[in-house]
Amino acid sequence: MSDLPARVHIVEEGPREGFQSEPAGIPTAEKIKLIEALAASGVPEIDCASFVSPKAAPQMADALDISAGLTMRDDVLYSCMWLNEKGFFQAQQSRFNLPALTSGSASDTFLSKNNRRTPEEQVDTQRLLRKLYSDNGIGSGPVYLFTAFGCNYEGEIAVEKAMLRASELVAICEENGTPPSSIYLCDTVGAADPVRVRRLVDAVRTRWPEYQVALHLHDTRGLGIANAMAGLELGVSRFDCSVGGMGGCPFAGNKAAAGNIATEELVMLCERMGIETGIDLAKLIDAAVLAEGIVGHSLPGKLFKSGLFNS
Amino acid sequence: MSDLPARVHIVEEGPREGFQSEPAGIPTAEKIKLIEALAASGVPEIDCASFVSPKAAPQMADALDISAGLTMRDDVLYSCMWLNEKGFFQAQQSRFNLPALTSGSASDTFLSKNNRRTPEEQVDTQRLLRKLYSDNGIGSGPVYLFTAFGCNYEGEIAVEKAMLRASELVAICEENGTPPSSIYLCDTVGAADPVRVRRLVDAVRTRWPEYQVALHLHDTRGLGIANAMAGLELGVSRFDCSVGGMGGCPFAGNKAAAGNIATEELVMLCERMGIETGIDLAKLIDAAVLAEGIVGHSLPGKLFKSGLFNS
Repeated sequence: MSDLPARVHIVEEGPREGFQSEPAGIPTAEKIKLIEALAASGVPEIDCASFVSPKAAPQMADALDISAGLTMRDDVLYSCMWLNEKGFFQAQQSRFNLPALTSGSASDTFLSKNNRRTPEEQVDTQRLLRKLYSDNGIGSGPVYLFTAFGCNYEGEIAVEKAMLRASELVAICEENGTPPSSIYLCDTVGAADPVRVRRLVDAVRTRWPEYQVALHLHDTRGLGIANAMAGLELGVSRFDCSVGGMGGCPFAGNKAAAGNIATEELVMLCERMGIETGIDLAKLIDAAVLAEGIVGHSLPGKLFKSGLFNS
Repeated sequence: MSDLPARVHIVEEGPREGFQSEPAGIPTAEKIKLIEALAASGVPEIDCASFVSPKAAPQMADALDISAGLTMRDDVLYSCMWLNEKGFFQAQQSRFNLPALTSGSASDTFLSKNNRRTPEEQVDTQRLLRKLYSDNGIGSGPVYLFTAFGCNYEGEIAVEKAMLRASELVAICEENGTPPSSIYLCDTVGAADPVRVRRLVDAVRTRWPEYQVALHLHDTRGLGIANAMAGLELGVSRFDCSVGGMGGCPFAGNKAAAGNIATEELVMLCERMGIETGIDLAKLIDAAVLAEGIVGHSLPGKLFKSGLFNS
């Protein structure tokens, strides 16, 4: 308990990772409405859209329209995502914040299915991207290690393997003179548990005590919030999550792959543990209700259905 | 982490608390099928039915038929529940194990709505019941403290108030010469969080170091499995839970009151933390799939939808 952070930085993934996993064409105006509701609740950073192939993610074809239509607040970071050079150039046309993303996968099979690259090709691509970011005046950004705890194809990923892939990504950033702003351990398919979280966070911290560790947790198998708690108790202070528990992953090898941990449930956990988030939980719950209305089907989150407890 | 129990005793509540919260008439044969599937998975104790007013819980009207039709295994405890003398006499007609239940509520408002009694009436009733158990040769049994962490009517319940109500129940057992076999802290409406779990478990342990503390957790607000983990880390080794996350509570003052934590998710958490349960997780997941088919609507559990992870 002694290592609890005083404050946690929440990155909301619903508008990007959540909407991206929805099949139907959600109107741009609805997406904007949700982003604005999330911003009004005090969420400090929102992943708003991704610039990827409209074939792979048809829901993201209106990324530039979202950017154009959004009323932005000064105290919120409106970010976006891409997977290659082309996507980055498109993202540059937007008003979004462009985090210098360097990503890879602990599972080579997942990388092959999700990014259609070998580990070597992934490293080459990331090196090129990282140089491109610098050429465009973008400094340090986060490193994302997908399937850090395991994947449905390869099962549990050994810590040594995850560390090998992480070190390749960290090296790309360091060699470029732009050390990572954080190292995200992503439980892309819900393979983690509190023991694995502790083990890998410890390994990353021991290897790179100077870098911030962050968690991107999915609740595929019901342990998401327990994994988040394990992270909080280690002092992890940066989490991706998604309002109402929206989301999923089309390449997780599992039709029932669930979304990220629900933002409002992580915020409640933080509140109860005395950790600040800067978020108005009641407003965030309203945003989750809004999100469910927009997607038009039940979202997995529980708190937004039950409502806030009286005290 | 050092206080983790080596083994956890799981009490399955699905057939009783789960079915009880379902509106439609589920065929007795289906209920029996689920109980037998749970037993086959290695669940050591199953709450099979309750002997309560058919008006309040119409789904439980066939409690004696379930008892009659069930093929019982020697290594499983098939238990049942009641709330008053009449229910106890009915339960005696069954083949079920009769645990000497002594129960009360930390929230007086919840007690009034759920049991229609004042705290004084509840103590009187429990004292009479406890004497009745002894007259019928039943020794020590568990104490159940409902709404131990709070309720939707009164908000958070102070530890002092919860301890006051718990001590009344413990005293009934001790004065009768049958000290409690365990003290169940029940998060009836999902008011708990890891901090409250630690605080109350510590208080109960400090006051009664000789008695086993047990947890009955609902996942109303998404923190159920984090609360279970907090319990495990304190060495709590007895948990009620419900297959697929079935259940709810009609008197929780909240239509969306969710069920117990999903048995299969707690079992996976235990497995991952190196804690034995004696349960075959793959078979338990099959039982959850069966339970969902029987109730005919989506159950909240996630693991049984995603399936087991490969390693």
